[in-house]
Amino acid sequence: MGFLVKLGILVLVVAVCQAYQDIWDYDGHKLKDTDYLSLWPMPQKVQTSVTAFKLSSSNFQIVHAKQSSAGPGCSLLQTAFRRYFDYIFGYMKKQGFSKEPKKTVGEEVLELQVLITSSDSECDGYPGLKSDESYLLSVDQPSAVLQAPTVWGALRGLETFSQLVYEDAYGSRNINKTAISDFPRFAHRGVLLDTSRHYLPLKVILANLEAMAMNKFNVFHWHIVDDPSFPYVSRTFPDLSQKGAYHPYTHVYTPSDVKMVIEFARMRGIRVIPEFDTPGHTQSWGKSQKDLLTPCYSGATPSGSYGPVNPMLNSTYDFMASFFKEISSVFPDAYVHLGGDEVDFSCWKSNPDITKFMAEQGFGKDYSKLESYYIQRLLDIVSTTNKGYMIWQEVFDNGVKLKQDALITVWKGRQYQEELAKVTGAGYRALLSANWYLNDIAYGQDWKRIYSVEPHNFNGTDEQKKLVIGGEACLWGEYVDATNITPRLWPRASAVSERLWSDASVKDVNKAYVRLVQHRCRMVERGIAAEPLFVGYCPHEYKGNL
Amino acid sequence: MGFLVKLGILVLVVAVCQAYQDIWDYDGHKLKDTDYLSLWPMPQKVQTSVTAFKLSSSNFQIVHAKQSSAGPGCSLLQTAFRRYFDYIFGYMKKQGFSKEPKKTVGEEVLELQVLITSSDSECDGYPGLKSDESYLLSVDQPSAVLQAPTVWGALRGLETFSQLVYEDAYGSRNINKTAISDFPRFAHRGVLLDTSRHYLPLKVILANLEAMAMNKFNVFHWHIVDDPSFPYVSRTFPDLSQKGAYHPYTHVYTPSDVKMVIEFARMRGIRVIPEFDTPGHTQSWGKSQKDLLTPCYSGATPSGSYGPVNPMLNSTYDFMASFFKEISSVFPDAYVHLGGDEVDFSCWKSNPDITKFMAEQGFGKDYSKLESYYIQRLLDIVSTTNKGYMIWQEVFDNGVKLKQDALITVWKGRQYQEELAKVTGAGYRALLSANWYLNDIAYGQDWKRIYSVEPHNFNGTDEQKKLVIGGEACLWGEYVDATNITPRLWPRASAVSERLWSDASVKDVNKAYVRLVQHRCRMVERGIAAEPLFVGYCPHEYKGNL
Repeated sequence: MGFLVKLGILVLVVAVCQAYQDIWDYDGHKLKDTDYLSLWPMPQKVQTSVTAFKLSSSNFQIVHAKQSSAGPGCSLLQTAFRRYFDYIFGYMKKQGFSKEPKKTVGEEVLELQVLITSSDSECDGYPGLKSDESYLLSVDQPSAVLQAPTVWGALRGLETFSQLVYEDAYGSRNINKTAISDFPRFAHRGVLLDTSRHYLPLKVILANLEAMAMNKFNVFHWHIVDDPSFPYVSRTFPDLSQKGAYHPYTHVYTPSDVKMVIEFARMRGIRVIPEFDTPGHTQSWGKSQKDLLTPCYSGATPSGSYGPVNPMLNSTYDFMASFFKEISSVFPDAYVHLGGDEVDFSCWKSNPDITKFMAEQGFGKDYSKLESYYIQRLLDIVSTTNKGYMIWQEVFDNGVKLKQDALITVWKGRQYQEELAKVTGAGYRALLSANWYLNDIAYGQDWKRIYSVEPHNFNGTDEQKKLVIGGEACLWGEYVDATNITPRLWPRASAVSERLWSDASVKDVNKAYVRLVQHRCRMVERGIAAEPLFVGYCPHEYKGNL
Repeated sequence: MGFLVKLGILVLVVAVCQAYQDIWDYDGHKLKDTDYLSLWPMPQKVQTSVTAFKLSSSNFQIVHAKQSSAGPGCSLLQTAFRRYFDYIFGYMKKQGFSKEPKKTVGEEVLELQVLITSSDSECDGYPGLKSDESYLLSVDQPSAVLQAPTVWGALRGLETFSQLVYEDAYGSRNINKTAISDFPRFAHRGVLLDTSRHYLPLKVILANLEAMAMNKFNVFHWHIVDDPSFPYVSRTFPDLSQKGAYHPYTHVYTPSDVKMVIEFARMRGIRVIPEFDTPGHTQSWGKSQKDLLTPCYSGATPSGSYGPVNPMLNSTYDFMASFFKEISSVFPDAYVHLGGDEVDFSCWKSNPDITKFMAEQGFGKDYSKLESYYIQRLLDIVSTTNKGYMIWQEVFDNGVKLKQDALITVWKGRQYQEELAKVTGAGYRALLSANWYLNDIAYGQDWKRIYSVEPHNFNGTDEQKKLVIGGEACLWGEYVDATNITPRLWPRASAVSERLWSDASVKDVNKAYVRLVQHRCRMVERGIAAEPLFVGYCPHEYKGNL
């Protein structure tokens, strides 16, 4: 779809921008880009102009292109059409949709045609690490066209299209003649939420999945259980939540809750990767599973408290095999996160049976070997379920033998560049979470610090850089729950989303500020309680939660 | 009202506690105080016991005592009765109120009698600095009695009564036999909200007044205008908001909005003290008021920007006289806050007319004398309206002659103890805000730092200490708006509320933690998005805003 240029009316300076540049009108005046461009994250390639078209809620339609491999039977797209139509005409008084011949007012975009070009639209599938999220968007009158190989790119393009629409002083919806070619810089762009330290009601999780889609995130890393509580309801071991959750009915995720999260995420092109962190961070598991955790000793007698998973009992591995068999069938994604971080050795050291086992295995005094022994057996178990695994960096640091498709999450802040170099130097793929722990708050505009983290900023070859496949914004749950999680996450996580989607050259903090202020107001208008960046206001202030 | 002690059944150990102590049952076991005591702020004197009575939503009533000077015509109390009834039976499935003879189940509290003892209940008045907020509460069966000189103490006692009620595992409401004698340590216990840097919708202000009442705060310091915007709609100078607000219709407080805030606050025993900060922090005033601000110069010519209020023009004082005449009639409280902080002298220094005026007045190069000149004239103007004034500490520091009833707000963090000593040493009354700037956030449990600030912790005589009449938790608006203000304020401001209400001996952070966790969950249950203190859960999690 090329541009229709009405030569008689105007010829404009079309700014072709790799990344983002200033835009000039046909008289050579610099345009205030804030007037009409508030794209977030910035697409890879944008051609835009000052030619504005109108959009009317009674005329405008989002439709399947004739040649598209997806049609009205694709409920993922149908639902997305409705969602984005609502976003575009949000605060307007809706008029009935006109079945009469359209009365257009001047130049108007009457439809957005969505064209899926692959023979398999993937409409009924799940997004994955290798999903193609690219799209081409051409906005012109009377038709705009969004072209994408699969529904995943179409979802990203619909978001971009909705971001191009702006409201003028009269409340009219406008969109400028634009052409966009876009794709993500990194394949894995995640947000970690922690539902163990505080339980998050389903509604809160869904609202944040909604906000993730607005920021083109594509992975929900669900840190679902941990020491404080076990809200995941297991069909195989129902006592895990019955005894390990804060409350067995009001503070759990039932199988149908989990299904709903997965489906809600799928509809937005978001993968759900659950984390069942072992052998540490497992106190809540022990409330129901006798012998699963290591008994700690005080001198010669058990102290009554428990440490990490007991790595010397076969029953431990039997339990894990059954448990992860269930997990692999409940969660459709090809990956599961197995944790492996922050294992405290003091309990193992206190236990005489463990001491004996260490001696038998020839581990000496090196408890990281015991940890590796456990993890190795766990990884082998999980591999039989045909899942790939993600793990925290300690597992790699301890020299555990990993499958080549393992994903290693680098989270320790201080030496993250060295760690990225080591992990990728060993030929493994890495994800960056270090410096993106959004629970760590500070006075002022700390999004700028978050925004300035560059995943390729380490010593390594081009091949090594390619092994960094993305990153995650992590919001650990010590100090957040339903009351404050959304404003704490947004728009600070948006800084991560642009870093992971846009070209590496998109890094000017001042230009980002202008767009992010508008993007934040857009999230607010859509019902997301994204907090302000600084002094100012939104045309439509927050009116309460979804 | 004495206790009815049924000697045949039990004799309990009644813990008489000045401040808060551990409580023991009749067998000498230490009771988990968390089971039934989560009072916040801690009352001055609590006698409690393990004897529990039931409360039923179909039987229980809050009624005016026969001898009370307030009756059903007192809508302040009637509305409070309804509010606290709802709080007490919040999550229960309500049953119809029984008009049949009451069927009691065991020992039950059937009514709370509210007895106002002064001949003037003050039901239709406004709370003030000298209001009596003391009350006596006696909980027994079948009648509990709340006795207070005025409605202001009754409101505090109703809050305490509602906090005594707890839910058992069967969902029943219980209250223990208790006697409380209570009064505030400090008379002025405020929360500052800033509606200039971000506009706060009325609903958000009202929700926070509601939360203030739950914490026995009694002053809403409304920092209503400042540099960024002027949302106050003035009848005398409508252009102030028409041109100075972020938006003249959607981001303003109309006269009826202001009335509603004042009345909503009054019903909760909260004073509304507006701050109209001059001569600095006035950029938004200048958008409509020609000549009000000082033109700044760049060399010999005006730069086009403006500085503080222009102190050399008579028109300035004419304007202020008209403006504050309006303010004094709109806001019923006896005090208005006149600001006076952070005056930047650079613009005054650049202006040749000001230089000339300085010379004429014999101020030399001391611009603080010019500032004082302005403030002195302003104070004289405001004094003619029969209002007292509050000001920030700079006004005192600069040697302005103050009326004896002036209230000086000490806000600079580092030398606040010296400043308190100076202000009170000069015989003035002081309020503490230093170290209570809640906009200053940090990772972790910073409420402990906030809680540990002691207003009397400075070198001074007993007379000087008495001149510290309270303090304020300040939430400046750079980084907060409707999306995040409530969880940022609560429960961190609760730490200030206990410091200002309870006895100075109530300062154990660990004991406070246990109560504050429950108080925070109580606020959440009542619809206030108070954020969590740490890992854990509430029986009834946040379900969305009011």
